[in-house]
Amino acid sequence: MIKEGELVLFCTEEGRSYLVEVGKRNFQTHRDSFALEELIGKPFGTVITGKRGERAFVLRPTVYDFLMKLRRVTQIIYPKDIGYILLRLDVGPGKTVLECGTGSGSLLIAFAHAVGESGRVITYEKEERFQKVARENLSRFGLAERVIFKGEAQESFEEEEEADAVFLDLKTPWDLLPAAWKALKGGAPLGVLLPTANQVSETLKALEKLPFAGTEVLEILIRFYKTNPERFRPEDRMVGHTAYLLFTRKIKEVPHEGN
Amino acid sequence: MIKEGELVLFCTEEGRSYLVEVGKRNFQTHRDSFALEELIGKPFGTVITGKRGERAFVLRPTVYDFLMKLRRVTQIIYPKDIGYILLRLDVGPGKTVLECGTGSGSLLIAFAHAVGESGRVITYEKEERFQKVARENLSRFGLAERVIFKGEAQESFEEEEEADAVFLDLKTPWDLLPAAWKALKGGAPLGVLLPTANQVSETLKALEKLPFAGTEVLEILIRFYKTNPERFRPEDRMVGHTAYLLFTRKIKEVPHEGN
Amino acid sequence: MIKEGELVLFCTEEGRSYLVEVGKRNFQTHRDSFALEELIGKPFGTVITGKRGERAFVLRPTVYDFLMKLRRVTQIIYPKDIGYILLRLDVGPGKTVLECGTGSGSLLIAFAHAVGESGRVITYEKEERFQKVARENLSRFGLAERVIFKGEAQESFEEEEEADAVFLDLKTPWDLLPAAWKALKGGAPLGVLLPTANQVSETLKALEKLPFAGTEVLEILIRFYKTNPERFRPEDRMVGHTAYLLFTRKIKEVPHEGN
Amino acid sequence: MIKEGELVLFCTEEGRSYLVEVGKRNFQTHRDSFALEELIGKPFGTVITGKRGERAFVLRPTVYDFLMKLRRVTQIIYPKDIGYILLRLDVGPGKTVLECGTGSGSLLIAFAHAVGESGRVITYEKEERFQKVARENLSRFGLAERVIFKGEAQESFEEEEEADAVFLDLKTPWDLLPAAWKALKGGAPLGVLLPTANQVSETLKALEKLPFAGTEVLEILIRFYKTNPERFRPEDRMVGHTAYLLFTRKIKEVPHEGN
Repeated sequence: MIKEGELVLFCTEEGRSYLVEVGKRNFQTHRDSFALEELIGKPFGTVITGKRGERAFVLRPTVYDFLMKLRRVTQIIYPKDIGYILLRLDVGPGKTVLECGTGSGSLLIAFAHAVGESGRVITYEKEERFQKVARENLSRFGLAERVIFKGEAQESFEEEEEADAVFLDLKTPWDLLPAAWKALKGGAPLGVLLPTANQVSETLKALEKLPFAGTEVLEILIRFYKTNPERFRPEDRMVGHTAYLLFTRKIKEVPHEGN
Repeated sequence: MIKEGELVLFCTEEGRSYLVEVGKRNFQTHRDSFALEELIGKPFGTVITGKRGERAFVLRPTVYDFLMKLRRVTQIIYPKDIGYILLRLDVGPGKTVLECGTGSGSLLIAFAHAVGESGRVITYEKEERFQKVARENLSRFGLAERVIFKGEAQESFEEEEEADAVFLDLKTPWDLLPAAWKALKGGAPLGVLLPTANQVSETLKALEKLPFAGTEVLEILIRFYKTNPERFRPEDRMVGHTAYLLFTRKIKEVPHEGN
Repeated sequence: MIKEGELVLFCTEEGRSYLVEVGKRNFQTHRDSFALEELIGKPFGTVITGKRGERAFVLRPTVYDFLMKLRRVTQIIYPKDIGYILLRLDVGPGKTVLECGTGSGSLLIAFAHAVGESGRVITYEKEERFQKVARENLSRFGLAERVIFKGEAQESFEEEEEADAVFLDLKTPWDLLPAAWKALKGGAPLGVLLPTANQVSETLKALEKLPFAGTEVLEILIRFYKTNPERFRPEDRMVGHTAYLLFTRKIKEVPHEGN
Repeated sequence: MIKEGELVLFCTEEGRSYLVEVGKRNFQTHRDSFALEELIGKPFGTVITGKRGERAFVLRPTVYDFLMKLRRVTQIIYPKDIGYILLRLDVGPGKTVLECGTGSGSLLIAFAHAVGESGRVITYEKEERFQKVARENLSRFGLAERVIFKGEAQESFEEEEEADAVFLDLKTPWDLLPAAWKALKGGAPLGVLLPTANQVSETLKALEKLPFAGTEVLEILIRFYKTNPERFRPEDRMVGHTAYLLFTRKIKEVPHEGN
């Protein structure tokens, strides 16, 4: 049942959607005005009709919805990449995940959701204004308690052999590879987000001298399709690039034949 | 610490990997023989040397590792798709997920891992031999307790308004859309895996008459890169297709303008 | 040497380009004004400076440039597809190519350029206003003499065993497959442009009963990269879809095992 | 009509194809034996039946067929790239094209076909054994007369302001950019094939100091589909990468804001 004060995904029939707090007020779209009070006590999925007859339906927001509606102050990490990162870093209930930097907190929200109440996420970010936005984004989704915010990571993280997974999303991730190694448990996965090919090369070079193994680099592409069953075809335009992803695993000695 | 009887990911330096149970025996690769007993009590990430001097390192298997090593009796769902499915279906700690059919259990393992101890997965599969393999795969990874196996779903599922998410992976998913609708909680997400464009069209047509909304169809492509930092470039060959993915949400009334 | 009255590609240093006729007049960009007369007698590649100091360079327009600057009244066929179509249809000097329909004439221009003075292109188009635009586009590039315009193709083309290649770009190409067969020389290639998966299925079904062989269906994707050498990476957005392409070859009997 | 001594594309009904010289002999596939003499005087597209009842059809080989059947001693350039290169370099009847290096001659054949009898192609290659193979490949297709073979290009090409287009396919193309500039007519296009991202960066860096403009970098992907109309879907595997392509244009002065 939808409660007063609850955050819901409000979707109009023409395809727009909004994160809206339910309360005793009207919600105004560009086409109509909806009395949100009607929703209280109704189940999710309910269809609501505006004053001019427009219809909308109300959904319980998923992590995905929330990621799409996030307040953004930086380039965010996209769901196509986040899903795969969660899987490769083995993020699940009870895990301890370390992330640097926080940015707007998109990946952070997905981490915090996936580790559950018994897990925790430590996130490093030098820019205070990004921290602030990420905190707000987290709180809005009720996940703030699972997250520990820290400032700039200089040459190392405070954690040692504590992290089940580490993720690096900063301009020069190669500087923090030794720090990531220290923070990781033995055999645990490291992920790195790298927008440019030059950054990938730089990171691969740095990894060659460090005790990591099984390194893979990849990119994920997502292609949406038009949903007309009589004219099934991909959308005309798509996202061409977000970032390359690098995954590797901490081992105890530098391998002879590279990572 | 690695324990006797534990399942580990055993990776040779030339790039092969195996899921191996640690015990008082030798493990034979095509190049060397390794005394697994040496590993007991060592941390994950340990490097072990074989009798002929070959080296290998030992990792704690992640869900991803396990998916790559699964015993397969059907076409499996791949990690590139699984990561995204988990995110879109909002699968996390404590959730109840319903899946039909089970197949070899690849997606099932990911679901069971993500819902944690407080969640559960209900999986329908008419072929008993697939059920058997999926059960074995789950047990090997210690996830069997979170899963309820059921036989063929005729026209409906036994669950009503119970599922936080439903996923359909069968030849004619359009037959089970009304069943999926019943099983889902209000506003909850449905995912469908569709290998062919014809199946997508058929499913989209069936959805038009049902109370679902926000339908999206997409495909995920993954492109691996060679890891030589001086010669960074994509791999020569890649997977060209696994399946189209369709996502939609249960609402209470059939929308006027289609899904 | 650039001559008066010649059509040139006029490119400003900030990256805009225009097809411009050289003459005794000024050319106005949104930033500056350029005396085109200065160009007369200069070689292509010349850099010209405007009244406010902006610079531009002047190129001899290639077919590609012309395709990008075409006057469009329909969806055009894109260079990524055109290059591959030319190759698959074996279009070269001296060939006779038949096309239906003309549209804005983008593929037509590429055909007319490739067949040279000794070749010819026959193009069918029922809409007179498209014909008119295509003619203008061709004339502007000096290729009109190689092209024969015809009206609607009802059930057949006037040509019989004359075409070295046929290309179909219309809504229901399956209606004209027998006509294409008749028009083609023995063993010659047919190409079909199909925006939707449903159209591909329909065309493949129709082909099964006709004497064509070696059928292939494919799509071409082009991905542009940013050209900063220190930050090499794909563009953020790309074209997600134009059309599927189908290629097959005329043979004398219906094959037993399908096309 | 098929003549004795003619090279034909011989395609079996199960989908194999061979470049075969027609003569008074049998052609043996792994399934059957075919009397080639039967073909003499028949039209292309003819269906021929072997001694055991297998059927095959006979086509006039296109440039594309020939590229697929080429004798290869090097990595070849693929049709997906060749079609686009021809278009971007504006290669057509009567043009003069300069290429370095020749390799197995795949792009060379496409150039020689496209320039017609009135055009010519100059190709530089330091390895004599590659030259030999390329010559044989060209001769087999009857295109040798349009091509001039030259040895290693040291620091410059012998041609000056002669080439309508230049294409570079060698390990360190940046060394020959000034040579390419000299050989090109004013405003004419240069293409470069670059397998790795590192080579792209290096080439882009070198271009910054040279009088070229309008530089673009891109890659072409081709995705084949299964041709079952009831189960339309992409092939399971595809080519993941051949090379990046760079295109630019010769101008008279180094641009202020880079290429």
